[in-house]
Amino acid sequence: MRKQTINLGFIGLGTVGCGALEVLRRNEEHIAQRLGARLQVTRAAVRRVEKPRPVSLEGIAVSADGWEVVNDPHLDIVVEVVGGVVAAREFVFGAVRRGKHVVTTNKELIAKYGRELFAEARERGVDVCFEGSVAGGIPIIHPLRESLAGNQIQELMGIVNGTTNYILTKMKREGMSFEDALREAQARGYAEANPTDDIEGHDAVYKLAILSTIAFDTPIRVEDIYREGISQVAVEDLRYADELGYEIKLLAIAKHEQGVLELRVHPALIPQEHPLAAVSEVFNAIFVRGNAVGDVMFYGQGAGALPTGSAVVGDILDIARNILHGCTGRVPLVNGPERPVRPMEEVTCSYYLRTRVTDRPGVLAAISTILGEERVSVALMRQQLAEAGTAEIVWVTHPVQERNLRRALARIEQLDVVREINSLIRVEALKTGKAG
Amino acid sequence: MRKQTINLGFIGLGTVGCGALEVLRRNEEHIAQRLGARLQVTRAAVRRVEKPRPVSLEGIAVSADGWEVVNDPHLDIVVEVVGGVVAAREFVFGAVRRGKHVVTTNKELIAKYGRELFAEARERGVDVCFEGSVAGGIPIIHPLRESLAGNQIQELMGIVNGTTNYILTKMKREGMSFEDALREAQARGYAEANPTDDIEGHDAVYKLAILSTIAFDTPIRVEDIYREGISQVAVEDLRYADELGYEIKLLAIAKHEQGVLELRVHPALIPQEHPLAAVSEVFNAIFVRGNAVGDVMFYGQGAGALPTGSAVVGDILDIARNILHGCTGRVPLVNGPERPVRPMEEVTCSYYLRTRVTDRPGVLAAISTILGEERVSVALMRQQLAEAGTAEIVWVTHPVQERNLRRALARIEQLDVVREINSLIRVEALKTGKAG
Repeated sequence: MRKQTINLGFIGLGTVGCGALEVLRRNEEHIAQRLGARLQVTRAAVRRVEKPRPVSLEGIAVSADGWEVVNDPHLDIVVEVVGGVVAAREFVFGAVRRGKHVVTTNKELIAKYGRELFAEARERGVDVCFEGSVAGGIPIIHPLRESLAGNQIQELMGIVNGTTNYILTKMKREGMSFEDALREAQARGYAEANPTDDIEGHDAVYKLAILSTIAFDTPIRVEDIYREGISQVAVEDLRYADELGYEIKLLAIAKHEQGVLELRVHPALIPQEHPLAAVSEVFNAIFVRGNAVGDVMFYGQGAGALPTGSAVVGDILDIARNILHGCTGRVPLVNGPERPVRPMEEVTCSYYLRTRVTDRPGVLAAISTILGEERVSVALMRQQLAEAGTAEIVWVTHPVQERNLRRALARIEQLDVVREINSLIRVEALKTGKAG
Repeated sequence: MRKQTINLGFIGLGTVGCGALEVLRRNEEHIAQRLGARLQVTRAAVRRVEKPRPVSLEGIAVSADGWEVVNDPHLDIVVEVVGGVVAAREFVFGAVRRGKHVVTTNKELIAKYGRELFAEARERGVDVCFEGSVAGGIPIIHPLRESLAGNQIQELMGIVNGTTNYILTKMKREGMSFEDALREAQARGYAEANPTDDIEGHDAVYKLAILSTIAFDTPIRVEDIYREGISQVAVEDLRYADELGYEIKLLAIAKHEQGVLELRVHPALIPQEHPLAAVSEVFNAIFVRGNAVGDVMFYGQGAGALPTGSAVVGDILDIARNILHGCTGRVPLVNGPERPVRPMEEVTCSYYLRTRVTDRPGVLAAISTILGEERVSVALMRQQLAEAGTAEIVWVTHPVQERNLRRALARIEQLDVVREINSLIRVEALKTGKAG
């Protein structure tokens, strides 16, 4: 006989946990109709039991011990939304070992321990879902695993961190400094008191690790992802980029070419016509290029209680359908072999550079000679007078290996006339034809 | 024992059929690895057997009779990509009645006969998938049925017809007339020799019927969808819209409010900041608002051999996974009850209007009086001199019931001073605050 109720236990009832619970409550009838069965949250563990929550906990046995959830034999699915990796890891592996299916939004956990977790889940015949770990409620993990599974993914490029996108939007639109924009993001609750994880790109690295694991069907190590944050981006760079027809975004980029991967998180210029360029404020988007589908993009809110709750509930429904039809493990998590990752110095990019030089004859010639000798070809150059006898030069190069560019820069930095190399930002999808 | 090969038969090897076959061939190893089984096309039916195809038919028994595919007892899945509804309907129902799963891209078939087809499929315990029937390779049917299934969808708005989007893009960017832009679309293969289905919105109506059936989990009748094409949109309207900060797009719109649906396809002004506004050329995008996820958008190529082939292969993989795990029918197609559809005269919209009037005192007063009497409130008005003693007036109204607007227009048309009402285009997501 078909099971008519699926029992859920939550570990953690913070923003995301309460969001998911709110979605389950608000859309209860709708979900029951779609599923043909009931979802019932019977147990939850929270750090502080007495703390008031914005959603009713009626019918839920709440305790302070996550193991009471993990060990409850009546639960079908454990929803881990407690955050952190130490305790969460124990709970998630514990649940899987007890034959429970798991839904988690824990990006650090999946990015760092996904490989062992997926192997364990496969062995135990349970499902692990983590749609909410990347880009909030935007469906991206499932489409990559399912609708787009007939494609070999060639490239993905995402704006996956709302905090940095908000800051860059503020800097661009209101001419704010990085520091002021960060303070405003904090005041609005878009940035943490300690914003390092977002600002320096760690958060985006975790998300890229997850996305590329799924897209390329291969295990990815967080350490293999090149990382640069946005704290070095200046308002001047956003202004120059705009003049040249570009936006600056913190991008999570993964490419796959002839068995070799490129994995990197860094600020980048993208043409204003690119679909990602219009993604502003705290919105997220993931651009995917497949060898059949061509270019597709997924856009939406990358965080928040209800959007992430939507992803959690979508995952719960997915697993519930597998339980009801006796087909858990229906979509394998990762089947493919490991793949080599290209070292950053061998990556080929275009570069935007901003330098301050002494304003006197021969400067351009000196710099150009070095660039030519190191085979760095310039697509575009702009010079303008700056303060007291100096000039600011902005260049955009044609695609060149990072190694060559670094070598040229090291020599240029030695020139007497060069006061400072202010900015070095990569350019994705360099415009061809008319520039600026 | 687990079945290791899934046998496929194709009915139709035109653009989409060959595209799907090309995807299966090109990504054969990749797909086998993802699926853990082989997909094998063993039979195909085409109108003209001797016609050369752009993809190898090696290993495929080709005949001119679709029934040879439908009746082949060795096939697991029938892929119907023959187009049209008369024969296709017989084949698809025939396959389902013989216990075969079906993948189809036939939007007209699903829009018109989906209801009976889904009932038949449910009874026979087979899967019917049709991701490629809407927006080519963009994953939208599966995300609506699965990742977003925890949401009550409140609204969806799509640019789902590439032909009309291309024409509007050309008119806007190059100031072409509708007729010239249509001719260019035909020359490029983006419009058919007989373009009526695209231009007049029939194609978009079929797609909206499918999208809203899935989004609102309810059967939809094509006849209940209001339809207007783009042949009345003038270059002047695109120019005025641009001055006011809007784009004009052919939109497929569905809303759900308190159990009542609104379903309409027509050209509409949308603010330039709206994510759909940047969707140009032949690209498609579908914007979805859920009561948990908020706003999400899916963007990509809405047509073409390989993009649509990607959708077909994604569907094949989905069904193959169900076959391998013995869980066909895992995601029900439509479970919900029928819902009433609001008649168009009761729909509330903002409107953009362009009229030609005699340039003399009192004209505005006469028009404004009628508008006031019919409770049509004006958000914005612009008047400018036109040829020989006439003036052109452009208004944008605040939201008003269509019935009231129509009544006001009928009276305004009677005024001596009104030469012509040139354009009447609805406005979605009217800008508030500063206009123009």
